[in-house]
Amino acid sequence: MDKYKSLKQECYEANMQLPKLGLVIYTFGNVSCIDRSAGVYAIKPSGVNYDKMTWQDIVILDLDDKVINGSMRPSSDAKTHTVLYNAFDNIGGIVHTHSTCATAWSQAGRSVPLYGTTHADHLACDIPCTEIMEDESIKGDYEKETGYQILNAFKTQNLNPDEVQMVLVAGHGPFSWGTDAIKAVYNSKVLEELCQMALLTENISPDAKRLKTALIRKHYNRKHGKNAYYGQN
Amino acid sequence: MDKYKSLKQECYEANMQLPKLGLVIYTFGNVSCIDRSAGVYAIKPSGVNYDKMTWQDIVILDLDDKVINGSMRPSSDAKTHTVLYNAFDNIGGIVHTHSTCATAWSQAGRSVPLYGTTHADHLACDIPCTEIMEDESIKGDYEKETGYQILNAFKTQNLNPDEVQMVLVAGHGPFSWGTDAIKAVYNSKVLEELCQMALLTENISPDAKRLKTALIRKHYNRKHGKNAYYGQN
Amino acid sequence: MDKYKSLKQECYEANMQLPKLGLVIYTFGNVSCIDRSAGVYAIKPSGVNYDKMTWQDIVILDLDDKVINGSMRPSSDAKTHTVLYNAFDNIGGIVHTHSTCATAWSQAGRSVPLYGTTHADHLACDIPCTEIMEDESIKGDYEKETGYQILNAFKTQNLNPDEVQMVLVAGHGPFSWGTDAIKAVYNSKVLEELCQMALLTENISPDAKRLKTALIRKHYNRKHGKNAYYGQN
Amino acid sequence: MDKYKSLKQECYEANMQLPKLGLVIYTFGNVSCIDRSAGVYAIKPSGVNYDKMTWQDIVILDLDDKVINGSMRPSSDAKTHTVLYNAFDNIGGIVHTHSTCATAWSQAGRSVPLYGTTHADHLACDIPCTEIMEDESIKGDYEKETGYQILNAFKTQNLNPDEVQMVLVAGHGPFSWGTDAIKAVYNSKVLEELCQMALLTENISPDAKRLKTALIRKHYNRKHGKNAYYGQN
Repeated sequence: MDKYKSLKQECYEANMQLPKLGLVIYTFGNVSCIDRSAGVYAIKPSGVNYDKMTWQDIVILDLDDKVINGSMRPSSDAKTHTVLYNAFDNIGGIVHTHSTCATAWSQAGRSVPLYGTTHADHLACDIPCTEIMEDESIKGDYEKETGYQILNAFKTQNLNPDEVQMVLVAGHGPFSWGTDAIKAVYNSKVLEELCQMALLTENISPDAKRLKTALIRKHYNRKHGKNAYYGQN
Repeated sequence: MDKYKSLKQECYEANMQLPKLGLVIYTFGNVSCIDRSAGVYAIKPSGVNYDKMTWQDIVILDLDDKVINGSMRPSSDAKTHTVLYNAFDNIGGIVHTHSTCATAWSQAGRSVPLYGTTHADHLACDIPCTEIMEDESIKGDYEKETGYQILNAFKTQNLNPDEVQMVLVAGHGPFSWGTDAIKAVYNSKVLEELCQMALLTENISPDAKRLKTALIRKHYNRKHGKNAYYGQN
Repeated sequence: MDKYKSLKQECYEANMQLPKLGLVIYTFGNVSCIDRSAGVYAIKPSGVNYDKMTWQDIVILDLDDKVINGSMRPSSDAKTHTVLYNAFDNIGGIVHTHSTCATAWSQAGRSVPLYGTTHADHLACDIPCTEIMEDESIKGDYEKETGYQILNAFKTQNLNPDEVQMVLVAGHGPFSWGTDAIKAVYNSKVLEELCQMALLTENISPDAKRLKTALIRKHYNRKHGKNAYYGQN
Repeated sequence: MDKYKSLKQECYEANMQLPKLGLVIYTFGNVSCIDRSAGVYAIKPSGVNYDKMTWQDIVILDLDDKVINGSMRPSSDAKTHTVLYNAFDNIGGIVHTHSTCATAWSQAGRSVPLYGTTHADHLACDIPCTEIMEDESIKGDYEKETGYQILNAFKTQNLNPDEVQMVLVAGHGPFSWGTDAIKAVYNSKVLEELCQMALLTENISPDAKRLKTALIRKHYNRKHGKNAYYGQN
């Protein structure tokens, strides 16, 4: 009997959505989810294909990067997940992919301008892009530094991770999160869609303007905060 | 026994076409259809995923925005539908999506130029784009104002909603309609295709010219009006 | 017993490939195939959806545009097919679609430059685009004139329809043909692919050069003519 | 009993992945795999559709281009494969496709700039593009010369085929390889993805910069060489 069975299964199900949603090919992504009360999180094993993975392959780590349970090596990006779980108190799941359009914006090193209400329904500012990593950090504990790179972007751009649940790591690719793993996957898919729409918007109008503030606030607040009136709750 | 069963089922079937046609992800869209004799219309519930929705979840409203039947909250865009049903006498169904290319043109704030016969088969002018909404309207009854924004575009551009069955709301996304819900969905798919073709046309030839008037009239009249000779009727 | 059963079935099967190959949505295309000895050809009925069509719906016409057999109205483009069958002696099938990239090149009014060997494997020159139709022709027998428009492009550009089996009608979309209906469909799919590749090539290098003549001849002759050595025959 | 059964089956399985991965339409590609101890390799027959091919159709050749076993004619590109097997000692499989984005870069005649870590995970330099072939070579033993064209690019650009497992042949399309056929197919899919990402990166930022050297080394060495720590081995 595996005491982490339900956490592993939640992690497995969320991981399996990535190829179905067209967000990853081969092993180009990973999802984790945390049990805050137990102080452990579950993550995809490194380099294992989605079509061969079972829930039993999922690896359990604590918040000091120690493997607690599981026979496989965790995702090489695990330390980035640990940094984010330690810094962002309210998040329950994290996703990293190399989805096509989000990766292209990351490679271009640009934040994604807020061009429309589809974007404003999810976050009230541009999708942030980090600075490119310094050489010393690259030579250090690289995956941990990737986490710090994200924290630094949120600090310098004064962003709240409960409101901005996605980020582009410059030269690399996207990370997203949410209150659970499925919501983090949702944000990962939405991010890819927003990146494609913004790319095409600039294609149609190279001098397209950002959405006006009143519309941003209106759409963001329709879905978030105490006056939200979208959905069934 | 639900007296609105057949209206709800018609609405449900039309809604379920959206994800199959690649026009929506998650809850990014809604379809409604009206029973003119009863003075009520059916619409998708707010924020419900397509793969979990049943026909019983569909909500019935009257033309004063009052929920007549159904246990769920209607789409947050319902008031926009109400405005359109009240203003456009001959329409039987309405669709709103955030389909990728149509949303990109909306975000660019541009009407879609009539570049070819595929476009002219469906409407004889550019696909209209509204003005961006005024701040006072945004702070008012927003979804109702979105309807007025569309009506205003049709009035100032002197358009007939029986002939022009699609519109782009600036900074937001597309709406389409038709004599019934399935025809409204058809127009939604055609709109997305026309938006992609126009985008690629400008990509291939930045100075592409609009189709000549004689070809526009020829193709539009092949399919519409008393001399139409396309199809089986 | 239907004496045209096998011709209708051949036509039906070829038509059904179009949506599967992603070349048409709804009723945006048609395929025909000819029985030269009987002097008749089979074509899709007008405005019938692919998912509702049966082989019995296929219409038989002679080469004077007269319906010989079938209870439905033939494709509104039938007269274009008739002109091509009468002018191009060796063709056995014709396809018309509004496939996305081929239509975008048609709308841009540009011939597709021969940028690579994928193109040269199929034809040894640019994919021709016709002139835009004159107003008198549009007011005349429009679909017949569309056929003449194609013949005129082949005459003025000195092209051989046995070697160049595809064309873009300016402002409209693509036609392709082949020795039978399935080969015409093959050319329709290849055309769409070549159009997409050429569009992306110019995207990557706005000043991309046409393939050199020696490579064009080499690749075209690998697959065509008496010294061909591609395939199993 | 066919003594080449297992080699043919390995070749067949790898070939069948190409259409599933969206890398080929019709017969636009081929995979081979070698048995080094026997000095023979298996390759797809020329011009045979994927949906009609069986493992028995696979052809066996020796490293002098002689057909050893099989009743069909081998891929017309077989001589290119032979040249590569003779020159690159450690490769076990080769793939040639006309996948859309990789072909577009080939047609543009450009090497693909290393813009991000997805690229660096697989190779530590730009994806090389060959020179365009000289006319004398085209008139000579063309498919053999295509192999020499690749060898020449690797020599003049000082590249190691164990580290750089993909190449664009100018005006033509991509070749990839790997220690076995499935890994060669993997590289073919990754190549297509990298080509699409680079294209979109330049679309978003025409003056995008290559990834800094420290990040290239870091990511390449995470997955390759004696200090690799990605995956389960």
